Amino acid sequence: MQTIGYIGIGIMGKPMVKNLLKAGYSVNVYARRQASIEDLCEDSCAVYDTPKALAQASDVIISCVADTADVEQVLTGAEGVIHAIKPESIVIDMSTISPEATRAMALQFSQAGAHMLDAPVSGGEVGAIDGSLSIMVGGAETDFQRVLPILECLGKNIVHVGDHGAGQVAKACNQILVAQTMNAVAEAFLLAQRSNVDAAKVREALLGGFAYSKILEVHGQRMLEGNYQPGFKAHLHAKDLRIATQSAEVTQCSLPGADLVTQYMNTLVEQGDGELDSAAIAKLIGSG
Amino acid sequence: MQTIGYIGIGIMGKPMVKNLLKAGYSVNVYARRQASIEDLCEDSCAVYDTPKALAQASDVIISCVADTADVEQVLTGAEGVIHAIKPESIVIDMSTISPEATRAMALQFSQAGAHMLDAPVSGGEVGAIDGSLSIMVGGAETDFQRVLPILECLGKNIVHVGDHGAGQVAKACNQILVAQTMNAVAEAFLLAQRSNVDAAKVREALLGGFAYSKILEVHGQRMLEGNYQPGFKAHLHAKDLRIATQSAEVTQCSLPGADLVTQYMNTLVEQGDGELDSAAIAKLIGSG
Repeated sequence: MQTIGYIGIGIMGKPMVKNLLKAGYSVNVYARRQASIEDLCEDSCAVYDTPKALAQASDVIISCVADTADVEQVLTGAEGVIHAIKPESIVIDMSTISPEATRAMALQFSQAGAHMLDAPVSGGEVGAIDGSLSIMVGGAETDFQRVLPILECLGKNIVHVGDHGAGQVAKACNQILVAQTMNAVAEAFLLAQRSNVDAAKVREALLGGFAYSKILEVHGQRMLEGNYQPGFKAHLHAKDLRIATQSAEVTQCSLPGADLVTQYMNTLVEQGDGELDSAAIAKLIGSG
Repeated sequence: MQTIGYIGIGIMGKPMVKNLLKAGYSVNVYARRQASIEDLCEDSCAVYDTPKALAQASDVIISCVADTADVEQVLTGAEGVIHAIKPESIVIDMSTISPEATRAMALQFSQAGAHMLDAPVSGGEVGAIDGSLSIMVGGAETDFQRVLPILECLGKNIVHVGDHGAGQVAKACNQILVAQTMNAVAEAFLLAQRSNVDAAKVREALLGGFAYSKILEVHGQRMLEGNYQPGFKAHLHAKDLRIATQSAEVTQCSLPGADLVTQYMNTLVEQGDGELDSAAIAKLIGSG
């Protein structure tokens, strides 16, 4: 069985590593913060000092870190994976980052005789724990098939969307759709409240029809309760929306709805609410 | 069993009458256009010349017409229901109209010794045929309970949202939520297409996660196929959005997302696409 090198032991990474261990894989880990990996050491993960050292000891590398700069640092930076990756090895980047930067790194790995897939996820901490994440994959079909058994330990709805960057594009689409739906739910609740109508009853009525969305069900309930424990943090959603709007700029498409919610999410973060669940957008709209 | 008087034999009204007949109710009908009721006559519906005459011969009145002015005409106009309604009778208005106008008419019926409920629906022609409509009801609880057996012949998810107008407020919330979700789906597909990524694959990947909505599933597919056979016509959706934005003005709430899609829907109608399904908003966004 392949040895997997995992980079980025955070809220998502830790349960993902546990699922890989449960499936029988040997897992090497690297994390910038030593504290975050202590209990994984008890799970017999080998710990490495640099991504490069990790790569030397692993067959498949998974990275799941915060943003584009972090991915570039651990994959192609001075002590990065690329400097020691084994021939024909596959790097699976499960972070949510820029599609353009993803394509550039995929080219670098290809030139180094290895392969890269972008495989960002949706489903949050709960999905990472349950192994029920949605995984959106970009890259070569043969590479996708080679690592599919690994991805199946981590997620349920696993789709090979297209070539390098396509997974990140799908994730950007996911994030603008989720944010706009949250905004729409928050606006609907505001209209109900200002009309002296119980927003909880409106939610109940709307769940049964065409207005049904996972967001109305899950995040709508959070808004009604004013419970913004993450879930998915507003400052990360703001970061993802910036990726989407930057891609829109690069590809010259106009997305006024996405622009609006990007501004809202940035405002939420500026107001000091970046650590709350991004459903806290309802606080800005006035209904949460 | 009560005799029901039905006003407004259109795309929605005809299958709804058939479901009432199937359940064993006697149904009287009134329609402005004689042609629309011809096959219902064969189903042994009694036909009346005016809403007033219909009211005289019926225990419960249901109206399902196009807009606020139409409802006012048939219910409280010169030849309207109110001039002959039996004491303690109930009028159920299933049209989608202004919450404010609804409250005014409910007061008039109360002064005339009768009762009114607003009970707009979601679910379209298919829901009307299947008897699976969502029904959002405003008015007194006792009146709601009295007509619930009738509503149960027409719909599945039947919620008593609140007092007079609350059903219409819920419907307005429904329509701004549906329209904004359509816009968000159309924007996501545009970003995918401009990034040279297959939007159908993106939809497939997103259906399994938090971005899931009935709109992504049903209307997203319509956008991918460019199939805008209604469904629910854009000019009616534009009308419903105007009701919502007018209510927002009356109740002084700011709904920028709803405003944006209202403008889109109006533009779609002005361009001559008012008879298409409202998912044709994707044509405006550039992805459909």
